[in-house]
This record gives sequence, C-alpha cells and structure tokens, in this order.
Amino acid sequence: MGGVPGVAGVPMRWVGPLRISGNVAVTQTEVPIATYESPLWPSVGRGAKISMLTEPGIVATLVDERMTRSVLVEATDAQTAYATARQLQERRGELGEVSGTVSRFIELVGVRHEITANLLFIRFEFTTGDAAGHNMVTLAADALLNHLLRTMPGISYGSISGNYCTDKKATAVNGILGRGKNVVTELLVPARIVADQLRTTAAKIARLNVRKNMLGTLLAGGIRTANAHYANMLLGFYLATGQDAANIVEGSQGITVAEDRDGDLYFSCTLPNLIVGSVGNGKSLDFVETNLTRLGCRERRPSGDNARRLAVIAAATVLCGELSLLAAQTNPGELMHAHVQLERGDQPTKAEV
Amino acid sequence: MGGVPGVAGVPMRWVGPLRISGNVAVTQTEVPIATYESPLWPSVGRGAKISMLTEPGIVATLVDERMTRSVLVEATDAQTAYATARQLQERRGELGEVSGTVSRFIELVGVRHEITANLLFIRFEFTTGDAAGHNMVTLAADALLNHLLRTMPGISYGSISGNYCTDKKATAVNGILGRGKNVVTELLVPARIVADQLRTTAAKIARLNVRKNMLGTLLAGGIRTANAHYANMLLGFYLATGQDAANIVEGSQGITVAEDRDGDLYFSCTLPNLIVGSVGNGKSLDFVETNLTRLGCRERRPSGDNARRLAVIAAATVLCGELSLLAAQTNPGELMHAHVQLERGDQPTKAEV
Amino acid sequence: MGGVPGVAGVPMRWVGPLRISGNVAVTQTEVPIATYESPLWPSVGRGAKISMLTEPGIVATLVDERMTRSVLVEATDAQTAYATARQLQERRGELGEVSGTVSRFIELVGVRHEITANLLFIRFEFTTGDAAGHNMVTLAADALLNHLLRTMPGISYGSISGNYCTDKKATAVNGILGRGKNVVTELLVPARIVADQLRTTAAKIARLNVRKNMLGTLLAGGIRTANAHYANMLLGFYLATGQDAANIVEGSQGITVAEDRDGDLYFSCTLPNLIVGSVGNGKSLDFVETNLTRLGCRERRPSGDNARRLAVIAAATVLCGELSLLAAQTNPGELMHAHVQLERGDQPTKAEV
Amino acid sequence: MGGVPGVAGVPMRWVGPLRISGNVAVTQTEVPIATYESPLWPSVGRGAKISMLTEPGIVATLVDERMTRSVLVEATDAQTAYATARQLQERRGELGEVSGTVSRFIELVGVRHEITANLLFIRFEFTTGDAAGHNMVTLAADALLNHLLRTMPGISYGSISGNYCTDKKATAVNGILGRGKNVVTELLVPARIVADQLRTTAAKIARLNVRKNMLGTLLAGGIRTANAHYANMLLGFYLATGQDAANIVEGSQGITVAEDRDGDLYFSCTLPNLIVGSVGNGKSLDFVETNLTRLGCRERRPSGDNARRLAVIAAATVLCGELSLLAAQTNPGELMHAHVQLERGDQPTKAEV
Repeated sequence: MGGVPGVAGVPMRWVGPLRISGNVAVTQTEVPIATYESPLWPSVGRGAKISMLTEPGIVATLVDERMTRSVLVEATDAQTAYATARQLQERRGELGEVSGTVSRFIELVGVRHEITANLLFIRFEFTTGDAAGHNMVTLAADALLNHLLRTMPGISYGSISGNYCTDKKATAVNGILGRGKNVVTELLVPARIVADQLRTTAAKIARLNVRKNMLGTLLAGGIRTANAHYANMLLGFYLATGQDAANIVEGSQGITVAEDRDGDLYFSCTLPNLIVGSVGNGKSLDFVETNLTRLGCRERRPSGDNARRLAVIAAATVLCGELSLLAAQTNPGELMHAHVQLERGDQPTKAEV
Repeated sequence: MGGVPGVAGVPMRWVGPLRISGNVAVTQTEVPIATYESPLWPSVGRGAKISMLTEPGIVATLVDERMTRSVLVEATDAQTAYATARQLQERRGELGEVSGTVSRFIELVGVRHEITANLLFIRFEFTTGDAAGHNMVTLAADALLNHLLRTMPGISYGSISGNYCTDKKATAVNGILGRGKNVVTELLVPARIVADQLRTTAAKIARLNVRKNMLGTLLAGGIRTANAHYANMLLGFYLATGQDAANIVEGSQGITVAEDRDGDLYFSCTLPNLIVGSVGNGKSLDFVETNLTRLGCRERRPSGDNARRLAVIAAATVLCGELSLLAAQTNPGELMHAHVQLERGDQPTKAEV
Repeated sequence: MGGVPGVAGVPMRWVGPLRISGNVAVTQTEVPIATYESPLWPSVGRGAKISMLTEPGIVATLVDERMTRSVLVEATDAQTAYATARQLQERRGELGEVSGTVSRFIELVGVRHEITANLLFIRFEFTTGDAAGHNMVTLAADALLNHLLRTMPGISYGSISGNYCTDKKATAVNGILGRGKNVVTELLVPARIVADQLRTTAAKIARLNVRKNMLGTLLAGGIRTANAHYANMLLGFYLATGQDAANIVEGSQGITVAEDRDGDLYFSCTLPNLIVGSVGNGKSLDFVETNLTRLGCRERRPSGDNARRLAVIAAATVLCGELSLLAAQTNPGELMHAHVQLERGDQPTKAEV
Repeated sequence: MGGVPGVAGVPMRWVGPLRISGNVAVTQTEVPIATYESPLWPSVGRGAKISMLTEPGIVATLVDERMTRSVLVEATDAQTAYATARQLQERRGELGEVSGTVSRFIELVGVRHEITANLLFIRFEFTTGDAAGHNMVTLAADALLNHLLRTMPGISYGSISGNYCTDKKATAVNGILGRGKNVVTELLVPARIVADQLRTTAAKIARLNVRKNMLGTLLAGGIRTANAHYANMLLGFYLATGQDAANIVEGSQGITVAEDRDGDLYFSCTLPNLIVGSVGNGKSLDFVETNLTRLGCRERRPSGDNARRLAVIAAATVLCGELSLLAAQTNPGELMHAHVQLERGDQPTKAEV
C-alpha cells in the first residue's frame, strides 16, 4: 500500500471574492487555490475584483454533464461488431438496469460506439450525482461489460477501459461527445474598468486572443483548445478541493472568446470537460471538507447540485486568471515588471504564461 | 497576494525501490508520490518490484533537453515577417549573447519560427541548468523580444507568449521540436516474471497496448499520445518534488510500446515533454528539499545533472505504474477485485484507468 | 461561369477484378482508377488478385451512413444558446418536416450541437438516398436555419456552414459523430498466399503496420488516421466515378489493422468518412455513367442501395492498394526495384509511399 | 499495369485573370481549374476580379520550400537509437553526398529525427528543383537508408517510409517542420470594393472567419487548419496542372486570416504544405504542358523557379475562392440564391461550403 504516510503541503490561499450568476448559482465567494506558483494568486485576484465591479458578474451556464467509461470488446469480425452495436441501442433499458445496480446515484444517459476492424469500442455515459464519478462509472462499466459478454454471442473481453472514455488524455472525443461538466462563463467588462483595472482596451485583448490563443495554439498543433493558462487555475482549484487533479489534462482543453463591443469587453471561457465532485475520493480530508463547506458545496441539496455549484465556481476561477493574464500580455513588459516586484518581496515567482 | 497562507496537504508515500540504469543514472531508489488516489501507490509499487527483479532494471535514455518560450511579433506584412525570420538565423550569436545576460545558467540552443499572414511566431529554445526554466526563459524571451523590436524595422509587439511554446496545452509542437527532457524508458521482463508477478502474458499486454493505447486513443482524437495513465504518476511525482504540476498536460503526452519477444515482455514508455527541475519555484519547501535530497538530486554535480537524474526517475516511475495497470486490464475483473479489497481495508479507492 | 470549356484528361484504367462480400454486396468486379501516378494500377491490381484467391474475399461491412451540415447561430448569450439547443431536441419532428420539404430523398436522422461562448453550432445529420448529398443537406440546412431564426427568440444568423460539418477538412468530428458511409473491410489471407503473392509474412506486415501507420502517424501529429496511402486509391476511384474528389481530405482519415493469426494475415481497413454518390454532380458525364453502370451502381434498387454498393467497392479498392504497399515496404528495396522496372518500360513512375 | 488505357475527362475552364506580386512573381494570369463542381469557377472568378481591381493585387510570399521522406530503422535499444541519431548530425556532409548521387537536382537541406522506444524515425529534407519531388526523395531516402544500414552498427531496416514524412495524411509535422512550398498570400481590399463586389463589410468577414474557420474548425477537432474550402481550389488547380492531387490532403491544411482595417479588408491565406512541380509525373500530358506553358511555368529559368511560380499562382487561386465563399456566407441566403440561379441555366451545381 506504499510506505510511511506523509503529506505534501502545497501552499494554499483564498482569493477573491468573485461574483457569479447563471443557471446554477448566484453567489459571491472567495476561492481556494493551492499552488507552488505564487503569482497565480494575485492574477486570479485581479480578475475576481473585476467580477465584483460588474453586474451581474461572471455568468456561468452549465450546458451539459455526464461521466463516461469506454469498454473494448473483440468481435469475431466487423459484421458481429456491428450486430452487437445495434443491440446496444435496442437494449438501452436493460443496460440502464444493469448499471443502476452499482449505485443509487448513477444513471445511464447515453451509449455511443465506434467500430474499427473487428473491435467494438463502447462508450457508456452516466450521471453520477455529486461525485466526479470515476469509480462509479468503472464499476458500472464492469457490470455492463460482464452482462454483454454473458448475453451476446461472438464477442470477448478486450479491456475494461478502451481509452475512448477518455480519462486524462488530450483528445477530441470528450469535447464532442461530452465528459464532465460543460460550463460556459461570460463576463461583460465596461470600457472604463478595462482601462482602469487592466490598463488595456477591449480591442487589444480581442486581437491578442485571436492571435495567441487561436492562431498560436492552432500552429502548435493543438487539439480543441485555445486558451492561455486554464491548466494553472484548474490545478490550484482541484488540489484545494480534493479533486483528481490529473483531470486537468482534458479539463484545460477549453476556449477563450474575447470581443470588443463598442469599447466594452465581452470575455468568455468555455470549459467542456470539467470533472469535479463534492463527494468521493479526497473529499474526506479535513482541509478539503473545510474548503468545500466554505464554498457552499456541502449543503443539503438535491443530488448533483453541490457538484454543479462547484463546477461553476471552478469555471469562474478559470475566467478570472485567464482575463488577468491576457490583459497583462497586451502590455509589453508588464508581466516581467510584476514579477520583479514580487521578487523584491521575497516571493517565489514564475511566469504563468 | 492572496488571503491567509494555508496548506493543502496531499497524502504522500514513498514506494519502491525501483531499479534504473541508462545514460544518466544507475541507481536504486524509492520514489515519493503525493495523490488523493491511493490505489496509485500499490500500482507503482508492483511495477517497481518487477524492475528490481530484472537486470539491468529500467533503462532510461535521455535523448534531448531544452526549454522554450515563443514570442509573437506583428510585421508590416508577410514579406517583412520573412525578412525578419531570415535575420534571426543570421544573428544567432548576437541573440545568444542577449539571452545570456539574464542568467549564467541559460544558453540559447535553437531558434525556430513560423509565419502566418503578417504574424511571426518565434520559438526560442534554451538549456536552463537544473531549473525547469519557465521563469528563466520568459526573462530571456523578454530580453530577446525587446532587442528585436529595437533593432529590426517593420515589426511591433504581439505577445511575450504566442502559445507556440507550448506551455501546459495539448499540442504537437513540443514533441516534434522538443520541450523539456525527452526520456525513453525500457524494461525487458522475462516470461516467468510476467506470469508470476503480473498474472498475464507478454502477448496479452502487447495486444492490449495496440488496441487500447494506440487505436483507442487514436479513435478518441488524441494528439501525439498513446498511453493508459501517465498523467496519474506524473502528477503524484510532480507534487511530491515541488514541480509545476500543470505541466502534466503536455508531460502526459507519451507513448507506450509493448512487444512479445518470445514470451518475454519488452515494455517501453517514451516521454518527450518531461518538464522538471531540482531548483526553482516550489523547491525550497521543507518536504520538497527532503524528497529531492533522498532522491539524490541535490548533490554537487555539474549544472543540469541533478535535473536530468530527476527526469529519469520520474520517467521510470511512470513506467512502473503504466506496466501495472496495463497488466491488470488484460485480466477481466482484476481491477474491480483489487478495488474491492482495498475498500475492505477502509482505504479510499478509485479506478486509475 | 468561367472561360472556354475544356477537359483535363486524367489517365484511367480498370484493374482487378476484386472479390467482395458482406452486408451490402456479394460481387466480383473490376474497378476504374484515374490517376497521374501509374504505379497505382499494378499496386491495386496485386491486392485485387489476392482477394480473388481467397474465400469469401474482402468482407465489407457498412456500419453507418449519414450526411451532415452544421450551421452557426449567434445567441444573445450562452444561456440563450443553451435554451435554443434544448429546443432543438424537443422539436425534432418539426425540424424533420422542414428539412423534408427540400427533397423527397432526404431524412433528418440526428441533430447535435456544441456551445462556445454565445455561439451555437448545430450539426444536422441526414440520409440522402443515392446522392453524396452535399447540395441536398445545404438546402435543408438553409431551410432549417431560416425556420429557427423565424421561430426562436434571441438568435441571429452566424453562418450557413460553421465548419463543424466538417467538409473537406482534417478533423475528428466526422469519425466520432459520423459523416458519409462508414465501411469496415476485412480480408483473411492464408500464410501461403502471403508468401507467394506478397513475398512476406503476416508477422512482418503486422509489425510494420504498428510502427509505420500507428506510431509514425501518431508522432507526426496525425488526427484519427493510421494508414499508408488511402488518399491515392480514393482519389483515383473518386475521379473515375464522378465524385467530389476534394472529399479525400477526410475520406483518407482511416485505420489499417493487421494481425498475424498463426501465420495467416488478418488485414482490415476502416474508412469512417467515405463520401460517395451514384447520382448528383459529375455523374451525368458519359464516362462516369459508363463506369457507374459497369460497377453495377445504376441498377433499379431501393433508394440508397446503389450508393452503398459504390461505397463498399471504393473501400475494397482502398484495401487492395494498402495491402500491396505495406507488403512491399516490409522488403528492403522492393519499392525501388519495382519502380526501376516500370521506368525501363518507359512508364511514368512515382513512389506511392 | 492495369487494363485498357482510358481517360477520365474532368471539365476544365480558365478563370481570371488574377493579379499577383511578391517575392516570386509579378504577373497577371488566368488559371485553369478542373472540377466536377461548376460553381467553383465563378467563385474563384469573383476573387480574381477583386485582385485585378486592387494594387498590387495578391502579394504572395514564398517563405520556405523542402520535400521530405522519413525512414524508419529499428535499433537494438533506445541507447543505440540515440547514438545513431547523434551520428546523423555529425555525418551531414557525407549524407548529402549520398543523396546527391540520385539526381543532380536534389540537395539535402535538413535531417530531423524522433525516437520512440527502440525505433528511430529519420526525416530527410531536400530541395528538388522544379519537381514536386516525391520520387526523387524516395530514391534518395533509399540510398541513405542503405548507407546507414551498411555503416552503422545496431540498426536494422524498419521501413522506407515511416509516415513521419508525412505524405497525404492530415498531421501536424508538415506545417511545423516544413514540407512543400510554404506560401503566404495577402490582399488588401478597399472598403468600397468590399461593398460593391462582395456586398458585405470587412468587419463581417473578419468576424465570420474567427467564428467559422477558427472556432468551428477547432471544435470539430481540426489539426492545424482554419479555412473554408482550400481543398476545392487546390484539387481543381492540381488536376489541371498534372499534380499528384492526393496531396490536397495536407495541402488544404492552411490558415485564413481576415482583419477589418478601418473598413478595408486585410485578407490572407497561408498554405504551409503546398506540393507542386512543373516537371515530373503527369506533366508530359498534352493539356498539362499547354496549361503549364500558358501559366508561364515552362520558361527557361534557374532550377526551381518555374515550380515556385506555379506555387504562388496556386496559392493566389486559393485566396480568390476562399475570399468569395466567405463573403457569400456573411449574407444569409446568398449561397442558396446563387445556386438556384445557376441551376436555371442548367448548370450542375453544388454548395462548395
């Protein structure tokens, strides 16, 4: 089980508050960020301050949620794989019952598949209540796979996970078919606040976003991603709230949109693959319980509502850091200047670009 | 600077020892892993045990190292962008001097560029001693960018980072042009050990690897990645050693190769984008210093050697966890069985698939 | 309308016959290939010969078919985009009626969407009878878009095509959600025929396929593709049958699987995005009519059957050329030797590698 | 060698003239386009007309050229692969001599490599005079591979092509490392011409380009591509000039940039992977010779100049069609209206969206 228990103490601070509205939560809250990169705190803090200066703040819209696990079965041939795939659709009710046996919180909401040669990849999609659901969907997929192998002719075990899920890899399938919470955040910043707080203009941010986040990432051979540093905020928030932080790999695949609207700045971050839970692994640690409680994600609510609240807070935190960094990069030298100042204060520093 | 200082205490254990040889280090060492997902410890531990049973253990070959930052300049037109790009090659010596002013540990080892419309993306490549180098290369890029803007006509500031670096995003450029340490690990496991320790065969692992890691990831729309769960091991190792763990986004883009060699298993993990440092941000925390010292990465050695040692240990740790999980997935139900056992011991569990 | 009408006469030959079975057609047929690269003819011919020597020949399984067009609408905000998206699912019947007005051959079989910021990309999926359907789905999308703009509040015109279709671009969405015919071809070649006709072994082909098509393409940053030269066969077949040959861009994204089954070779090509029609643009040219008739794709059959037949013949043609080239590349120098021989015969030559 | 010789007669017309300037050619020329999709002619024609109304027309800048072939060798282990790779750089002169033996037109200009497990992918980069060079680089790669196998210990034959070239596949490597001609085209269209000829505004085109070509393609999981329909123009031009048209697969991976510059439209198409030749396969057909001559690409010029001229004409043709279609899509219904008009004239039609 591993050696002597110990602890890696990652420095953590609360920043904000930030203001959130939308179809999940209307709230003001500070957010905890655990990181070895201290400039991240003031960066998110600046964005949070701007959200407080605007009305209605960051509007976070949850547009989808599901957790997935793909299994792989080997069929006698493609014809058999195809016949099996057709059965999956006809047996949806039956499959829902099978997966429902592993937990009262799980529900089968979709089944997709893909056939290559004689291989059948089946992607099961579930809702999992307030849990991120990694474990729950694996249990369900195991039950479903066994059920299929027992009741369908011509197929045999391939793998309990076929990498078509996809967990913690940089792929396209999660964004296209959905995995985790899909949250869109939007913030409209009046021209005056852009000038005063960010020392730049909406036009400059919009242009930088097209050139750096869209074109730069495209040239780099990016896959379904166009942002400056979502990974930084996600990691900090995930560690502070007991999430499986390896999910930043796909979680950080998201898209920043910035528009100059007559001098005001429309700024939006879309995170299609945000995997969070308010219960489950890592959530029983004392500091995590404390943090989740302070974020208002341990209330008595209908199943799933605490996790959804957590998701929109995470997404809003990402927007704050993204806005701040992009604004800084519109001004030559600002990033360097900020770091030199922090260094004088004996703070460890690092460019979060 | 953020609110009241606190700490996110991520559970950490030492697992192993594992055996490493190759062009950087010949050693046996335990490795620290900080994670909320406790099944990761025995998973890595099983792989480590196998490395100890073989001779020469995991052979880790460092095949490249460099750290990068891309800047973006806007040119009057494409013709000017092209003229500027040509100057970059002619002025390599001069540019090396400019970047050398920011640190005695930095050296410019390459300059690449790409032109789109009137935009010029310049990717500077450096070695950075024992530091991961994020901060150092940003300082150097800032100096280089200012130098270019002062001395070249027809160009203006675009961004200090053009996302062509690429930092913490899932792209292709890092693997193709290089970023971080590029480490190949190899382990030859005799057939008997495959059977006894992993309860499977080389043929089964090789077939699963092609179907799951290669085909499954390909179908998912993966970009330059074919593995089961590098992200898990990297995150745990990065947190325990004070690394910027958001670099698991690109760090986890790597390739597992498995071959059945007359019953013996040839198993290899290639990590082209492994970003680690033995000094720099996060390294002055007490537990990090302790961990790095215990790993033998705080010795008096030529600049860069401690970081290289850390890189091959990280890569070997990845191999251990990858081997263990793939072996488990060749056997129907093994993963579930292991988790149920752990649960009975009141351990928090989660499928690390 | 352009200048004086002329003709680009692309050299065309019939090769084969090849043998096909499966869920669409059981047939033997020669196939026409128009190309400037003459080595392509003997290459496909060699594969065709092998298909004739085996029983049941190439088994082609059609596993999906649909044609798509995505439209883009701008919503007031993400919340409105989300509300609109939900309406799409509730109004499926109504949308089917609207699209049905443009042709009696079109049927709406799916509606998918994705939201980014305040933008809503809607992907309509149709069956289109015997036509490839580019034009038909654009007409339908236009009608649907107008209908939505008239009947839904808070949205405005973005684009009749939002590139989420995706037509003639290298993306992941077509394979994951489906576009065109999805055809899997399989051929089992006895060991003796592998040795006699291809001068190689199943093991060598399987190993080359993993290393070249899977790993090589992966390292190159490929997206959902693992093959040697599908594009060559598709182009030749498309030109000879009046198809819109620019669809080879996505059509050539496909996957070759090769396995050594006790010395016999299991060889499979999966083409998830095969866009073909037996009627429509380009099909009224005399030579095209002749070719389609000779291929048996102008018979009186239920709507769609002629196009499906054409699709499996196209896919089988791809398999023939792919098998031949991979076999050649297992033998050092064979490709060069073949070309030198062809050159002596005063044939124009080119490596189709 | 295939059956009875025949011809696939693809309808061809000359459109234009269009106006080109830049670092390769200053010229006005009509261009031939062979296609089954007749709306393509007036579409390109409209763009060409606009180029004639502006001064200096389309500015085409050639920023790179090289042709590549990758070989694959298997090494004893990664250590040996690494040692071999290092030798490649040290033996550059020797390798240049070996490749030079196959043709007086070929020159080795770069050697890149990538190591995965014990596999070494070597990517040779050449200039090839006026030929596209597929055949020439394969001959050179064969000579180089044989030379390496003879003179380097510990390696054996893997493949004459390792798919890291990459030929006719949708990947990232070609754009990042270079393959074919890399041409940037730019056109500045005054506001009045945008209004009169395109019935739209620069702002509308710029916004559509970001949303459709950049965001839409990104969401679709595109790899290094952001355009509406480069593939259509490239196919038509390639067929009319005897090119290997299967190269549109990677050739169509390119980037459209559009900006509103105070009402004027800055419009740019970057094609990083444009593979063309004025000599070689397919160029000896009568109509091809005629077309190349009329394009001014059969003049007595220094080696390579005719091919470069052909490349910039191809790229300018792409810009014309791209501009026309994007402009049309800014106006709801325009595309449909145009097609209905064409249909009344009994023209075959198809949406080239």
